[in-house]
This record gives sequence, C-alpha cells and structure tokens, in this order.
Amino acid sequence: MSIRIFVTGGTFDKEYNEITGQLYFKETHLPEMINRSRVSPQVVVTTLMMIDSLDMKNTDRDLIANMCNSTPEDKIIITHGTDTMAVTASVLAGKVQGKTIVITGAMIPYKFGSSDGFFNLGCALAFVQTLPPGVYVAMNGRYFNWDNVRKNRQTGQFEEVDIK
Amino acid sequence: MSIRIFVTGGTFDKEYNEITGQLYFKETHLPEMINRSRVSPQVVVTTLMMIDSLDMKNTDRDLIANMCNSTPEDKIIITHGTDTMAVTASVLAGKVQGKTIVITGAMIPYKFGSSDGFFNLGCALAFVQTLPPGVYVAMNGRYFNWDNVRKNRQTGQFEEVDIK
Amino acid sequence: MSIRIFVTGGTFDKEYNEITGQLYFKETHLPEMINRSRVSPQVVVTTLMMIDSLDMKNTDRDLIANMCNSTPEDKIIITHGTDTMAVTASVLAGKVQGKTIVITGAMIPYKFGSSDGFFNLGCALAFVQTLPPGVYVAMNGRYFNWDNVRKNRQTGQFEEVDIK
Amino acid sequence: MSIRIFVTGGTFDKEYNEITGQLYFKETHLPEMINRSRVSPQVVVTTLMMIDSLDMKNTDRDLIANMCNSTPEDKIIITHGTDTMAVTASVLAGKVQGKTIVITGAMIPYKFGSSDGFFNLGCALAFVQTLPPGVYVAMNGRYFNWDNVRKNRQTGQFEEVDIK
Repeated sequence: MSIRIFVTGGTFDKEYNEITGQLYFKETHLPEMINRSRVSPQVVVTTLMMIDSLDMKNTDRDLIANMCNSTPEDKIIITHGTDTMAVTASVLAGKVQGKTIVITGAMIPYKFGSSDGFFNLGCALAFVQTLPPGVYVAMNGRYFNWDNVRKNRQTGQFEEVDIK
Repeated sequence: MSIRIFVTGGTFDKEYNEITGQLYFKETHLPEMINRSRVSPQVVVTTLMMIDSLDMKNTDRDLIANMCNSTPEDKIIITHGTDTMAVTASVLAGKVQGKTIVITGAMIPYKFGSSDGFFNLGCALAFVQTLPPGVYVAMNGRYFNWDNVRKNRQTGQFEEVDIK
Repeated sequence: MSIRIFVTGGTFDKEYNEITGQLYFKETHLPEMINRSRVSPQVVVTTLMMIDSLDMKNTDRDLIANMCNSTPEDKIIITHGTDTMAVTASVLAGKVQGKTIVITGAMIPYKFGSSDGFFNLGCALAFVQTLPPGVYVAMNGRYFNWDNVRKNRQTGQFEEVDIK
Repeated sequence: MSIRIFVTGGTFDKEYNEITGQLYFKETHLPEMINRSRVSPQVVVTTLMMIDSLDMKNTDRDLIANMCNSTPEDKIIITHGTDTMAVTASVLAGKVQGKTIVITGAMIPYKFGSSDGFFNLGCALAFVQTLPPGVYVAMNGRYFNWDNVRKNRQTGQFEEVDIK
C-alpha cells in the first residue's frame, strides 16, 4: 500500500526567520517527520506549494484537485493551513471521486516544542487507511466529513457545523 | 464519545535518572501529551502499572483484561512496552469481547527529542475510532490484528507473521 | 553570591499565539530555564517588562537603570531583544556604576527547538561572575563592551564597531 | 581567538538505542550545538574518545593531557562524564601549564528535551575566555578550581570540598 502526502504549507511548516523576526516558509518538515515516525507503509511526499491558507486561491485549489486525480495513489493526505481547510475540502469533494483524502495541519508550527503537528500527522495517516473514499478534515484527534466542519476562530478548535 | 487510555509503562514513558544515569519510570506523560494534542473527544487516562513489558506477568495481563472489561468505554488504547505487545494482545483477544482495543507504544522515550511516541498516539487514537471491535497493535503507522503481528528484534519494526 | 536577572522580553520569550498565528509575549521562561540549568548560585528573576526591544522607550531604559541601582546584587543579567541591546547598554553605562551588568537575548525564541537562548543564558551567567564592573552585551558566545558593539542586521551577528 | 573543544563522551553525548533499549554513544552532538549557538569565536571540535567517565583509564587521561599540550590553542574546553571530572582535572593540572582548561558535561543527555548540556556549554565557553590559566570544572552555572571540587552523588550537584 502506498500513501501520497501533498504539502501545501500552513502553520505546520512555518519557521522563525531570525533576521526579520517573522514566521516564514523555508522547506517542508514532512520528510523529517516521516523518518522520525518509522512508518512502514510507503509514503511519498510532494510539495505543491508553501503558503498560508488565507492566501490560497481558486487556482491553487484546482491544482490540488488535479494532483489528487492524477496521482496513482487512492489514499491521500494533504497538509494545509487551518483557516481554510474546510474550503479546500469542499472543492476537492466536488472534483475528486473514489479516493480517500484527509486534510490535516497544525495549530503550532512543528518546529515549536509544543506543536500538535506530529500527532495530527499520525491521526491523518491512520484515518486515510481506514476511512471509506471521501474527503475529510482530521484535527483535534477526530475526523470530520468535508460538508460538516468549520474552525472555531475563538477557540481554535474544529467542530461540526450541524451536531447530529 | 469517550475513549479510555490505560497506561502500562514501556519505553514511551521512560525518563533519564540523572543521579543513577539509568532510564526509569516516574510518572506517565500521557496527560501532557493529551493536552498538547488538543483532542476534542473525551479521553480518560488511567495508569495501571509503570513497567517494562519484559517484566509483565500473567497477573498483570489479567489485570489489564479485567480493566478493559469493567471500564464503561468500548474504545480503549493501551500504552505498552514494545517487546511483548503481541503477547498482551493475544491475552486480551481471549478475554475481552465487543470492544475496540488498540495497543501502542514507542521505540524512543517521549522525552527524547526524536521520539515516535506522539505520532503513535495519534495513530492509535484514530484507529480506535475507526476499526471494528477487536484487538490491534498500532505501530509504524499501521495497525495489525492481534493474531498476526510480531516485533522484528533486528530492525525494531513491527511486521505481520503471515504476509497474505 | 547572588545574581539578579531582569527580564525585559525580546525574542527570547516570544511564544506562538495559536489563535492569531502571531508571535506574542505571555510569561517569561526564565524560571523554567533556571530550573533546568541546575545552577547553584542563587539567582533571582524579576520581570520588568515584556516587550519587543524596538518598542523600548527612554522611560523603559530609565526604569531598568533605576532597578539596577536599587537592587542589592552587583551582578546583574538583563534579557533583552537583540535590536536595541546596544542602546540600552549605553544608557546603563551612563547611569549605573560599580556593577557588572550583562545584557543577553536570543535570535530564536526559547520555545523553538533550535533556540540559542539557553546557551546564551549560560554565557551570560558565566560572564557576569568573571568580568569586572561595567556594562556588556553577551551574544554569539562572546562579550562586548557597551561602547563597542552593534548588531549586524544582515547577518544577525553581533560585532565590534571598531576592530582593534 | 580560537578555542579547542576536546570531546570525551559522558552523559552529554549519550543516545537512546532503540533496538537494545540502552543508552549508548554514537557521534558527538558538539558540532550541532556549536552551529546552533551561533558563536563567532572560532571553535574547533576534536573527538578524543566516546566513553563513560567511569570507564576512563590513566592512559585516557594521559592522552587528553598530551592533546592539551600539543594543540596550538591555549583556551580548551573538555566535554566529560560527570562522575570523574575531578580526577581528570587533577591529572591535567599536573601535566599542562599555561593554558585555560574548562571541563564541562551534562546531567541529562543533550538529546533529552530537558538537558542542561547546551547551557553548560555556554558557561564553559564564557569561562574559558575570561579565567586565567589553570584547570577548572564548569557545572551548575559555576566554575570550580581543579583542587577544590567534587560531585555530590546524592544531590547530583557539584560543590567545593573546602568551603572557604
């Protein structure tokens, strides 16, 4: 079994620029994280973009959808900024069929000691292997269907739009 | 939904004793890890023992089985030393019915910078929510059925006994 | 022997705010760092302010000078943002006599895995015990006299103004 | 100014062997630490041995002394296990003249999140630049003269033999 990870940036991969004192993107930490996780399924990492998800445009989301369709794997993880995960999930649900796609990210950059990113990657990797085809967001130790998820900007937690 | 975590020790929770220079058990790091993970499902942590899994006895495994049966949750994670995970999985499969039990651990103590433990906990938490009732080992980013798993002592990787 | 540490903020103590995605100040990490360092000299930590050194005003520097004069210790460490360390050093040199004052900071926040802060604190603690009275900046593993130091904004390194 | 660091092993450089579950020596972390510290003085690292200081023999100490004498630098840091630092300091004091030698180490391996090693290296680097020729132990944020230091095995703290 082979799993594809598409990197798009987000808090996950932000670094501290010691010259400017700002957070910025350099390279993704996914290969380092995969190595540290000692996973045995074959995982292939491809960086599509390195951007803040508030800066993600329709053309970016089209690119992600196209890549999901053209990659041979049917189990796909997308690392993504948390602010617009639900938007991207919705776009992918309309354009990609028959694949299990799990979008995840982090509230704290991986390079910060207290990051949730490594845990979230573990969740995403497990969900992508066990959930039926569809598009999901994996955050806060849960998965959400693409059409029933939002980020609560006050608490920083993901939640269902309609609690059933 | 509520998830129970039973702590039994293992590499996961080992600390460095600066007086003796040996690794030892003090307190579990699970509550700290749960807090850092920002999980929204309710997770309840109970420490059953803090031992190396090579020192785990039949009576210890009976205790774990009894606790799995008596706890109200039907989704249970057990943190455990890696060396005898498969033995405990087998005992639990014979004694506990109708619950999803996921045994996990770490190759490197959580307090070491390079630990796989936080990732493994993420995997276990996702698997316990998505797998049908049964007993599983979650390591190396995968899950294994209780009756088809062993630790390869040379590579440190978990693998199936019979590759189907 | 007793050493006073005055905390003023700076990169050293910046945290990641997971709701806004910005760096900010919460509480100083100095007590945690002192604990971890296992120092035996008595070290007393006082937080004077928690600000970016680019926001430091004359009244802030007057406050620091007054505190250096009124505290009973004659060995003083000041944690400080790197951008205006040299300005503060100059103000203190004009207002405080007969004490050894070492200003230090960090290029990367302590809470980032790759921070230089803990090392710099070690340098500052050693320099404050061994240098004669005067005002110094301790960065990049060196000490600089207050009247011959600047931060090179291109390289992020501290250097002498006049190389003797 | 150039500073020589001789690596001899000790807790400082211990790693966790995930196959055996034991602590062991692989490679020194000193180059990584030097890089992270952003030091501007030229620092040259040479690994002499990678051993537990309880296993250090007279011939090992003779080798260290010979290397201190033959290296061109007159400012030397030695990383060393904590248990026999005082013994090595005494040997060096008898064999090396006219150089400032600072022996340091760690109570917790550098690769453990809570290590004191990076701080101690900062202290040692500052002390070696400011102390007169002689042999010193730098631990717990202090320096000790070679003939008045011991490790308290109960507390793990270094202390003077004779309190003046």
